[in-house]
Amino acid sequence: MEYSSRLLSNLIDEFARLPSIGRKTAQRLAFHILKVDREEAVRLARAIEEVKNSVRYCAQCGNISESEMCLMCSDSRRNPAIVCVVEQPSDVVALDKTGQYQGQYHVLHGSISPLDGRGPDDINLASLLARVRAGVVKEVILATNPNVSGEATAMYISQLLQPLGLNISRIARGIPMGSDLEYSDQSTLARALEGRQRME
Amino acid sequence: MEYSSRLLSNLIDEFARLPSIGRKTAQRLAFHILKVDREEAVRLARAIEEVKNSVRYCAQCGNISESEMCLMCSDSRRNPAIVCVVEQPSDVVALDKTGQYQGQYHVLHGSISPLDGRGPDDINLASLLARVRAGVVKEVILATNPNVSGEATAMYISQLLQPLGLNISRIARGIPMGSDLEYSDQSTLARALEGRQRME
Repeated sequence: MEYSSRLLSNLIDEFARLPSIGRKTAQRLAFHILKVDREEAVRLARAIEEVKNSVRYCAQCGNISESEMCLMCSDSRRNPAIVCVVEQPSDVVALDKTGQYQGQYHVLHGSISPLDGRGPDDINLASLLARVRAGVVKEVILATNPNVSGEATAMYISQLLQPLGLNISRIARGIPMGSDLEYSDQSTLARALEGRQRME
Repeated sequence: MEYSSRLLSNLIDEFARLPSIGRKTAQRLAFHILKVDREEAVRLARAIEEVKNSVRYCAQCGNISESEMCLMCSDSRRNPAIVCVVEQPSDVVALDKTGQYQGQYHVLHGSISPLDGRGPDDINLASLLARVRAGVVKEVILATNPNVSGEATAMYISQLLQPLGLNISRIARGIPMGSDLEYSDQSTLARALEGRQRME
């Protein structure tokens, strides 16, 4: 579809290059840009450039950061001996909101999923191994998602780190707080039984 | 969801402001920007700014243009006495590809649809009326979409222009070329019968 403006066609092409944006949506977005206030369009363009200019991954943990070392890694009140391994930066935010965790994090940026062609080398794993080998870390909590690839990833990392003699644990999987047994799926119920904890 | 980068949160907010982009997609887009080459991100940002700086609507017909008057309206080989009225700039492109039409266009940027709260004042109609009143236009072809709101819009414009003594026509609706009667819906078949043309 060639519009009478090369610039507009170009913007549609650029939008269509983004993940999960099809041709139709790209057109809708481009026409939206054409319609909105100049200020709003410029704000989006600037936001893109600023992220590209100033946001990167933390050199130590792989989390989102605006400096070499992220806020979590450079916070001296956080315990560097405990590292919680998660798949995504959004998981760091979710876990930290609980206020229950004062250690550091490690962000894998994905999980191992051979069916999708993602192996151990495709996630941020080498730096975790190097970090653990450096000797400060004494405990690793595996907080990857409780789905097929997240479980596989936890299993893989656990076996990888086992020889280094650390405490390795996996977050508990079970019935979510506030929910009904009746509506829980079978694998969650099975896992809840398997992971039952003694009451003192 | 507050990431450890204000700039990233800001970009997510900006993406989420776009139509048909939800919070989840906005996050995916922002992380995509974080991941891609600097060059690719900058290209998108520039494309947005360039459209905002240099693309506008044609002062005469409302079509996409990079100057005061669009390429169609300023093309002296096109017949200014015939105006084809369409809903969207993309319709101009589609019709012009046929090579069957040498007149000019008028882009409404929508259709009349009271159920969606869009009346005659919400589309680019006043300028069509002014254009026709100026006297050059002798024929108007209504090429709005053959759906409820497009038909209503065609009907409305037809009644509006009737007193001005022009030729007013509506594009033919019927069975698409290359398709089977068997698979055509009933209202298309009914319209095809109603609009039958004598064979000489």
